Amino acid sequence: MSFDVLQDKIIAMKNPTVAGLDARIDYVPAHIRQAAYAEYGKGLKGAVEAIYQFNVGLIDALCDIVPAVKPQSAYYENLGWQGMEMLERTIQYAKSKGLYVIADIKRGDIGSTASAYAEGWLSGTAVEGETFKTFDADCVTLNGYMGSDSINPFLDAAKAEDKAVFALVKTSNPGSGELQDVGVNRGGTVYGVMARLLEKLGQGTEGKYGYTRVGAVTGATHPAELAQIRTMMPHTFLLVPGYGAQGGTAEDVKFAFQENGHGAIVNSSRGIMCAWKKTGGDGHDFQEAARNAAIAMRDDICRFTTIQ
Amino acid sequence: MSFDVLQDKIIAMKNPTVAGLDARIDYVPAHIRQAAYAEYGKGLKGAVEAIYQFNVGLIDALCDIVPAVKPQSAYYENLGWQGMEMLERTIQYAKSKGLYVIADIKRGDIGSTASAYAEGWLSGTAVEGETFKTFDADCVTLNGYMGSDSINPFLDAAKAEDKAVFALVKTSNPGSGELQDVGVNRGGTVYGVMARLLEKLGQGTEGKYGYTRVGAVTGATHPAELAQIRTMMPHTFLLVPGYGAQGGTAEDVKFAFQENGHGAIVNSSRGIMCAWKKTGGDGHDFQEAARNAAIAMRDDICRFTTIQ
Repeated sequence: MSFDVLQDKIIAMKNPTVAGLDARIDYVPAHIRQAAYAEYGKGLKGAVEAIYQFNVGLIDALCDIVPAVKPQSAYYENLGWQGMEMLERTIQYAKSKGLYVIADIKRGDIGSTASAYAEGWLSGTAVEGETFKTFDADCVTLNGYMGSDSINPFLDAAKAEDKAVFALVKTSNPGSGELQDVGVNRGGTVYGVMARLLEKLGQGTEGKYGYTRVGAVTGATHPAELAQIRTMMPHTFLLVPGYGAQGGTAEDVKFAFQENGHGAIVNSSRGIMCAWKKTGGDGHDFQEAARNAAIAMRDDICRFTTIQ
Repeated sequence: MSFDVLQDKIIAMKNPTVAGLDARIDYVPAHIRQAAYAEYGKGLKGAVEAIYQFNVGLIDALCDIVPAVKPQSAYYENLGWQGMEMLERTIQYAKSKGLYVIADIKRGDIGSTASAYAEGWLSGTAVEGETFKTFDADCVTLNGYMGSDSINPFLDAAKAEDKAVFALVKTSNPGSGELQDVGVNRGGTVYGVMARLLEKLGQGTEGKYGYTRVGAVTGATHPAELAQIRTMMPHTFLLVPGYGAQGGTAEDVKFAFQENGHGAIVNSSRGIMCAWKKTGGDGHDFQEAARNAAIAMRDDICRFTTIQ
């Protein structure tokens, strides 16, 4: 679904945040793990089913207060094909609960290879004339180091399916500057070149809120750059990782939003998923803890940003 | 396995090429497709099994003349979790036939997320103290736009498992220059910054041939840049896509090799997989056609490059 749908949800819930679904097995409370191991064995299948039960519990606890979830592909690939099967189920379940699903895959490839990825994640794959949708997310994250060839096949799929993409601009990690901050002869930085490229690639796909189908990933840990990118990319919806565990604050992320409080969504993963580890309990309260953490994050961000 | 193992195989076979295993269902001869559909239905499962039979046939036809295969993850994700299950089988089968397996995944993420990917693809995932290997390739491709944080977790896994990685430097696609060729203030280009970063990250991991565990992807379609990168990265093993269908020639790729003919491997995907489409037959000869195409590619490259 396009960013219009996401912005609608954000406005309706007055909550510009997305909950990461990046479950490692050690994020899952012991009682869920033990039950899954008892039924499926203490191996990959047991871990997969434990994480799925945890994901379902998180989705149930969050779906009426958080507009979107962001499963991170790494934590599913980590468990092999069984993890990928569970990712398909997780995406389907989240969508069935009305959540907007951003598959955090950071793929980047070209030509027919990029088209193959776009089919797998957005538009479906044709076998002898019939189309099969598998991962079928609403939106994916991309890495545009290879240039527009690596974005356009996804953009085509997004247009056909009324979906959208986010591509990396300035990431939240300590080493992000090694390449992204390098100054370029034409003025500005490497991430600035990427920002302009993406803003241009999206042109002509603006929805009712004025954002194109090509969003940008910009970390909360670099507030000055975030403000600069918000200005450079007026038609671009921003996905902002780095709030909470990585050090970004609500005051930092306010720069991601436009004056009306539109145009960005802030991610938290561990802060919500692992909230139960801080309540002093044994994990039976993981849903309540996640919900409380999500509400606290929403309220924290809305101290500095008012969504009209 | 490290680049030592790969270079050993290349020297033994006098063949510095890698065969892509990027099967789309329409690359598979009709008789294989029909047999798979008859057994598994004309859907994802039928397509997956048809491609697996095709992969097995290609591996059998190539394993005594080609040192390595490169399955491209996109063509497996394209088919959902069932495609990923088949990728695990394909990697296992290729390894059982003595082939070096480069999983072309171009992943790029940071911190614990990059570690999760590295576990899934290289070193295995721990569940309650026991380690499970799933995709278990010898080597993966990476995208370093996010900086050294996105390479180091894979490098750690590669060191622990005696494996290796390739990261993108200058890619073979028409749009590669949009970001990679941009001139930087410190001199040179964005891909030059990436080249220096990778050469440095690998330092201290050199094997018996002098190459680190951090290889670089550099397209055959830009021979001048290829020659420059070969000089800039004397301790870096190169993976060279773009030969054949994309327009790179044997004379172009000679620049990827050092004087002794070491230090690079050239990829061909469609040229080998789809060779049967050019014989005038109905695809029953796909193994012979692939083998002949692989031999022709080897001989073509060795006209300009002598492996000592």
